[in-house]
Amino acid sequence: MNESLLVRACRGEQTERPPVWFMRQAGRSLPEYRKVREGVPMLESCRRPEMVVEITMQPVRRYGVDAAIFFSDIVVPLRAAGIDVEIESGVGPVVAEPVRGRADLDRLPPLEPGAVSFVTESVRGLVEELAGTPLIGFAGAPFTLASYLVEGGPSRHYERTKALMHSQPDVWHDLLGRVARITATFLRVQIDAGASVVQLFDSWAGALSKAEYERFVLPHSAAVLAEVNDVPRIHFGVGTSEFLPLMAQAGADVVGVDWRIPLDEAARRVPGVPLQGNLDPALLLADWPVIEAEVDRIVTEGRAAEGHIFNLGHGVLPSTDPDVLARVVERIRAMAG
Amino acid sequence: MNESLLVRACRGEQTERPPVWFMRQAGRSLPEYRKVREGVPMLESCRRPEMVVEITMQPVRRYGVDAAIFFSDIVVPLRAAGIDVEIESGVGPVVAEPVRGRADLDRLPPLEPGAVSFVTESVRGLVEELAGTPLIGFAGAPFTLASYLVEGGPSRHYERTKALMHSQPDVWHDLLGRVARITATFLRVQIDAGASVVQLFDSWAGALSKAEYERFVLPHSAAVLAEVNDVPRIHFGVGTSEFLPLMAQAGADVVGVDWRIPLDEAARRVPGVPLQGNLDPALLLADWPVIEAEVDRIVTEGRAAEGHIFNLGHGVLPSTDPDVLARVVERIRAMAG
Repeated sequence: MNESLLVRACRGEQTERPPVWFMRQAGRSLPEYRKVREGVPMLESCRRPEMVVEITMQPVRRYGVDAAIFFSDIVVPLRAAGIDVEIESGVGPVVAEPVRGRADLDRLPPLEPGAVSFVTESVRGLVEELAGTPLIGFAGAPFTLASYLVEGGPSRHYERTKALMHSQPDVWHDLLGRVARITATFLRVQIDAGASVVQLFDSWAGALSKAEYERFVLPHSAAVLAEVNDVPRIHFGVGTSEFLPLMAQAGADVVGVDWRIPLDEAARRVPGVPLQGNLDPALLLADWPVIEAEVDRIVTEGRAAEGHIFNLGHGVLPSTDPDVLARVVERIRAMAG
Repeated sequence: MNESLLVRACRGEQTERPPVWFMRQAGRSLPEYRKVREGVPMLESCRRPEMVVEITMQPVRRYGVDAAIFFSDIVVPLRAAGIDVEIESGVGPVVAEPVRGRADLDRLPPLEPGAVSFVTESVRGLVEELAGTPLIGFAGAPFTLASYLVEGGPSRHYERTKALMHSQPDVWHDLLGRVARITATFLRVQIDAGASVVQLFDSWAGALSKAEYERFVLPHSAAVLAEVNDVPRIHFGVGTSEFLPLMAQAGADVVGVDWRIPLDEAARRVPGVPLQGNLDPALLLADWPVIEAEVDRIVTEGRAAEGHIFNLGHGVLPSTDPDVLARVVERIRAMAG
């Protein structure tokens, strides 16, 4: 397993071709996924090991990608810790009682590993079925999770979250500390069951300034990453090009890059750090020659990094044609020489 | 009028204090606005000169800001050119027949100045009522407007827009050329009626990479800005910190900066260019001491620029307390000496 292309790239090796996987490769864009999920609510699907194994395996079978990403929802660990959160169709996570002040913190107990035994079972089943293809463990970063808890759901402007962090920094740090422990436990359970790499998704950190990220977020993401340093750690955010060095400094072995800056520029900002990315998922809806040129450009620019994992700059969009992803994988695999 | 604080800052003068106004200062956060708009659809309100004058004046009266911003909606010039677009409450602009290919371009006729005589009338009324306070003319930039035309409404990922620009670059450039001419006409009408500064809003340009901006957008924004070079031109986008120099190069006299980078850093990226910004509108929901410290920081960092216009990093959020904006203006006006 240690010799997988993915793990070698995470260690900073120049591999014969970049390993390739896609954020959200399992999920909404696949007809076989939509079929399996029929009539099963999102969070329920994450709690059924057989379903998690099947959904996680679907893109591995279809595309032959170099990694599986554990199928879960970003709020699964919060829900397992006892927080009343649901996924509403067409909306996203909805938190029944948002966190707005100190009194609300008591509603954030630690996550007991026993409360996610379905994760242990799922990961074990996956590792067996994957037969050598590495499994990436998945968790949302403290800021992104906290934004759902504070806003009560998805947000465009994060105004309550930002107001809380600035106006009540003690409450904020207490909140993020609690979420960080939940996240660390959730990743630990996945590693103990056999995940060989983890990715911390700070999807919405790009809403912050560098100064805010450094003061209010970095210490908590660093606490999570420090607790899982026995496997390679990928740290990803969207719109975070202004503070990539802080994303690395938090304790990442690999930094994820969206599509806004090219990988050679990213490599200048975080020298010596392996990179993951950075095809714009929207471009998968363009004509094939456009995509092909983008793939080639990214692979070329990725050579400037010490280790490159080919991926998108954000998750696969639901409207993506799976055949296009198959062609991307085919093109990259053909580079093996 | 040429000696207004705003125009002096646009010319690159170090003013005794920064002029201050707020994007979306007229609108949803003001109770007097909500009252005037009761029962009147958005686009209808933009076509009634008396209403436009009243709404534009409301924040000038309430806050004593250093500029008025012409009250309009970003799709007003498209609608006036004959495009079937409506504002749906809770959604935003909805385009009846989205632009998806060459055949759709015929539905984009030029804007005849006579079709926006209500704008001329509104601006004339405003200039009279403003009695010396400068009026900033308003228009959406070609990319942002085109994104509505292609997607058919607001978008999170701009996948159809990006697919079109890459897959059918000829159609894309034809589309943006047409939109640019509509935008230029719309600004020209405002200038001819008395607007003393214009702002081109490329609200969603931050969804693009620098390379995409340079190739697919810059030439068209530059065409617009070249046609209105008889007044100072402010060029604003959200999340555009990676290509501020291109925003300036397009022909801006002033570059708008969101909250993601501090103004001293922005000044290093576009040396010699006056800047506008950059208080995070979400922070207006924090406690006053937080806001006060942010205002002071921004004014201090803004001294690194050759001319600074104090503003937010994006529009006023609807939930903003107008009294907080009043205090911000008061604090900045107190800096006069």
